[in-house]
Amino acid sequence: MEVAAFALSGRLFTAELRAGTARELPVPGPVLDPRPSPDGRHVAYVTRGALRVVGAEGDDDRALAEPESAEVTYGLAEFIAAEEMSRSRGHWWSPDSDRLLVARADETPVRRWWIADPANPAQEPARVAYPAAGTPNAEVRLFLYALDGARTEVVWDRVRHPYLARVHWSPDGSPLLLVQSRDQRTQLHLVVDPASGTTRTVHVDEDADWLELLPGVPAWAPDGRLVRIADEGGARVLAVGDRTLTGPRLHVRAVLDIGGDDVLISASSGAKAPSGGAGASEIGEIHVYRVNELGTERVSDGAGVHSAVRCGAVTVLSSARPDRPGAEVRVVRDGKELAKIASYAATPGLSVRLRLTEGGAQRIPCAVLLPSHYREADGPLPVLMDPYGGPHGQRVVAAHNAHLTSQWFADQGFAVVVADGRGTPGRSPGWEKAIRNDFTLALDDQIEALHGLAGTHPLDLDRVAMRGWSFGGYLSALAVLRRPDVFHAGIAGAPVTDWELYDTHYTERYLGTPAENAQVYASNSLVDAGQLVRGDATGPDRPLMVIHGMADDNVVVAHTLRLSSALLAAGHPHEVLPLTGVTHMTPQEQVAENLLLLQVDFLRRSLGLTRP
Amino acid sequence: MEVAAFALSGRLFTAELRAGTARELPVPGPVLDPRPSPDGRHVAYVTRGALRVVGAEGDDDRALAEPESAEVTYGLAEFIAAEEMSRSRGHWWSPDSDRLLVARADETPVRRWWIADPANPAQEPARVAYPAAGTPNAEVRLFLYALDGARTEVVWDRVRHPYLARVHWSPDGSPLLLVQSRDQRTQLHLVVDPASGTTRTVHVDEDADWLELLPGVPAWAPDGRLVRIADEGGARVLAVGDRTLTGPRLHVRAVLDIGGDDVLISASSGAKAPSGGAGASEIGEIHVYRVNELGTERVSDGAGVHSAVRCGAVTVLSSARPDRPGAEVRVVRDGKELAKIASYAATPGLSVRLRLTEGGAQRIPCAVLLPSHYREADGPLPVLMDPYGGPHGQRVVAAHNAHLTSQWFADQGFAVVVADGRGTPGRSPGWEKAIRNDFTLALDDQIEALHGLAGTHPLDLDRVAMRGWSFGGYLSALAVLRRPDVFHAGIAGAPVTDWELYDTHYTERYLGTPAENAQVYASNSLVDAGQLVRGDATGPDRPLMVIHGMADDNVVVAHTLRLSSALLAAGHPHEVLPLTGVTHMTPQEQVAENLLLLQVDFLRRSLGLTRP
Repeated sequence: MEVAAFALSGRLFTAELRAGTARELPVPGPVLDPRPSPDGRHVAYVTRGALRVVGAEGDDDRALAEPESAEVTYGLAEFIAAEEMSRSRGHWWSPDSDRLLVARADETPVRRWWIADPANPAQEPARVAYPAAGTPNAEVRLFLYALDGARTEVVWDRVRHPYLARVHWSPDGSPLLLVQSRDQRTQLHLVVDPASGTTRTVHVDEDADWLELLPGVPAWAPDGRLVRIADEGGARVLAVGDRTLTGPRLHVRAVLDIGGDDVLISASSGAKAPSGGAGASEIGEIHVYRVNELGTERVSDGAGVHSAVRCGAVTVLSSARPDRPGAEVRVVRDGKELAKIASYAATPGLSVRLRLTEGGAQRIPCAVLLPSHYREADGPLPVLMDPYGGPHGQRVVAAHNAHLTSQWFADQGFAVVVADGRGTPGRSPGWEKAIRNDFTLALDDQIEALHGLAGTHPLDLDRVAMRGWSFGGYLSALAVLRRPDVFHAGIAGAPVTDWELYDTHYTERYLGTPAENAQVYASNSLVDAGQLVRGDATGPDRPLMVIHGMADDNVVVAHTLRLSSALLAAGHPHEVLPLTGVTHMTPQEQVAENLLLLQVDFLRRSLGLTRP
Repeated sequence: MEVAAFALSGRLFTAELRAGTARELPVPGPVLDPRPSPDGRHVAYVTRGALRVVGAEGDDDRALAEPESAEVTYGLAEFIAAEEMSRSRGHWWSPDSDRLLVARADETPVRRWWIADPANPAQEPARVAYPAAGTPNAEVRLFLYALDGARTEVVWDRVRHPYLARVHWSPDGSPLLLVQSRDQRTQLHLVVDPASGTTRTVHVDEDADWLELLPGVPAWAPDGRLVRIADEGGARVLAVGDRTLTGPRLHVRAVLDIGGDDVLISASSGAKAPSGGAGASEIGEIHVYRVNELGTERVSDGAGVHSAVRCGAVTVLSSARPDRPGAEVRVVRDGKELAKIASYAATPGLSVRLRLTEGGAQRIPCAVLLPSHYREADGPLPVLMDPYGGPHGQRVVAAHNAHLTSQWFADQGFAVVVADGRGTPGRSPGWEKAIRNDFTLALDDQIEALHGLAGTHPLDLDRVAMRGWSFGGYLSALAVLRRPDVFHAGIAGAPVTDWELYDTHYTERYLGTPAENAQVYASNSLVDAGQLVRGDATGPDRPLMVIHGMADDNVVVAHTLRLSSALLAAGHPHEVLPLTGVTHMTPQEQVAENLLLLQVDFLRRSLGLTRP
């Protein structure tokens, strides 16, 4: 019986996949993260911080692990794991369906912040545990639970390696953990003895900058070898046991599946891809490869962003292309297409006019978008740089829909430039890690890309603005404050402005801790101790629009309010759009549309443009 | 022994006025509102909600009244009394120094709001009792306390007349109370029997609109007659006992002192002042008069805003003039000047070019300020209307310093017009009360004044903006939203945008309660149920700048956030400046200066102006 479990509006459902039927299981409380056991006989789920197990027929519902206080949860990923480690779960079934590994998170040591809704003063503010850089994290422990509730703690040196980054438990070996030191420069691969809960180190990674957490690893191969992604010799490679299976021609992004005779991965072209060939021509592409000791075979074909899931002989391959909307999803067995999965997504109302290219001496990956009806005779255009530009955010991708918003801005009369400078993923470990201690290199690279493209594209360097959200918002405000000689206006959405207000695992990875690296924090922040940090900027005060969700519990609105206060104290022209009830994500459709229109209004008047 | 008492940083000091010495009295807790007894032997003060009495030598400190819970205070004015009734105190000595009247305020029934500091998320939000329109007020009771702590409750029908507006206890009679019904259309003058606490009604006022609370009344004359200010026959007059001592030629503002053979008042010229004479020539003037049954004598002279305090034969007269900065303070006995009190106030850096005039068919009082160096040949100027424009806020005054900010704006290249339309004080009861149920008449009058002045002043009606704070901020946003045919931009500082979010005593006085008058609330608000209220406005969306202190606990920032949300949902161009840590009052000097500069920037770009 193949069973799936899912939660809808806090209610628990199971589905029998072959029968195509679903049923609701009556359980107490709102349900989070239900997971069926491999044998399909039970479902584990979390409600009110307790891990519970219920029979697949809805029978024998019971609590395995109940929280000792309101600060404790069992079976859930705490904030840092979910937000910064891409670990969204907190319990894992044994392959024999007889036990579970269960994370226990205790937020007692974490400092509390208040998230208020000032537009609704009668609403009691939420008190949240927010581990800001340099402050205590939640304490995370791991337990083995038998289905009768008997438990054994999994023991490792949590003082040295407090971060539980990954848990893997498959039929191919004992439970496997990846734990990291607080500075993220050391990580251990640990094997758990399920009888005693003791652990044994099977591999240690170290990195002078930091160790990057990647999808699908670590894991066991069927022959018991450890599958990892590692940075070796300047490249990000796939390692199985003692062997490195890829080289500098590929930059491995993720392990998608591990089979008996290969590993399915996704990868971009590496720094040492054949020059003049794949390197330049594969800008923004991600492909799927089968890798084993005999070699590497590309599974996907054609320019695009490809990914796959695989089970046994069947692979489902998803391919987004630069020249058409949406993604094509194909079901393949033994290289033969069995089926296409139809898409009912609406067709976007505009087509992107996308050029993927490289800019500047560093050959920075760039996307350039011109107005749909632009002709060369129209002459140079005002420039809108539209980056994310920071860690974990690749914006220059060979996929149509990723550029829709940029194209919409282009159609308002701008040459839109998207550049992935140092710090962004997808190119090389060195490219990613260059920004250690210095995010401002990301701004330097935006400028290098801009100037590098200006000779070959219709860019009016006397009218340049930048817009961005989150790290991109930080970068836009940085552009206005630090390089008013280059940028004439900026739009900062939900920007980080004071790195001491951002979280532990992200911020310390790049900047260390505020106590150790006070000067690094100050020079990377827009506001330090209430004052603008302008470095050695020379030039007039450029207008800045700042947009922030008042309910943002990731980059809290304090970032924008402190920036606005400091700008006001400095007499710097700026305007704020506070979004009531909005978190760090994009708001509802109508507001999002009006936000775009207000941004264009701001750009037009700040750059002295008239309507086209 | 003449003793004054004062609190500095929560510490209690007494001063012996003849000796010119001061000393600190050691008392527990932070001290509020200390009051010496008339005989100078004791000081009553409030600390942590308790009313205490201490001997003038610092001896025998004791609590007379201690709060039964954290929601209760003794001896203090609660929020509504202080903010809306001009009653800033909550305890009163008997003339014999042997007893005190003490107000007890219990906020238990009042709904709670949260005032957060989102720029400092670690700061716990403050929970405040805010009586919004239509919701419960604090329960206010009054007690007579002997110095040994024995108490007697003062009893009146608090269900019908819950508002304790005034308490007066002088050697000239028994304690006198003024209490109001919740709708403020009925008020009772009550005399207290200090032995039993029972009360007897000596006078009842009723008004179809509302009864205005005025300074210095009610009070006893030395002969035991009741001194009141009353609206009679369309005029605001002084009444002593059964006699009305002033007529329609004066609009009485306050009782300043009551002597044996006269009453000292301040007044503006009334609606029926000699036509063509005082009426027009006294725009914005307030004078001091001696009034008795023989007639009225003006004490102050020359155009200006005059006030006085008097004790026995000595009068201290303060006179601000339209043509010179600051105020002149003279000490007068029997019409002879004994001394001038020197002023060490700095001289403002600019001089106002002030014209006091009238505009439109209603002869609306106006001040017009042109740039210091303006010449007729310069032609028409963009117009900045700079009103308060609402209840209790007279802006058109014959005093130089009141117009400094307006002149500063004028010097940036604007014709600044300040108009006091219907709803503003100082002219007549009818003028004040015309806005019952309809604040939007205040906007109509701004427009009437503008158009009325345009024929005789260099006003460019194609470039008109309005700025204002509080009610003036409301009016500015109303101007942009409802009359885009007249106004091309607006700046709204700390505006009320949804009258359901403002307080009981103020809002219900003009609009009734939301339950009774839902439609009135909706049509007077800028935002109703999250939607912009634009009435039958026609015209393009005009840009609006909104400024609000995040810590405002009077007009809470929810007003601006709800307006911004509704504007965003409507795609209306606007920008917000959220002022961190700022309440309803003007912030510190540097921020205030930068705020002015940002406002001018906004006006220039919104009206399409270049720098002069």
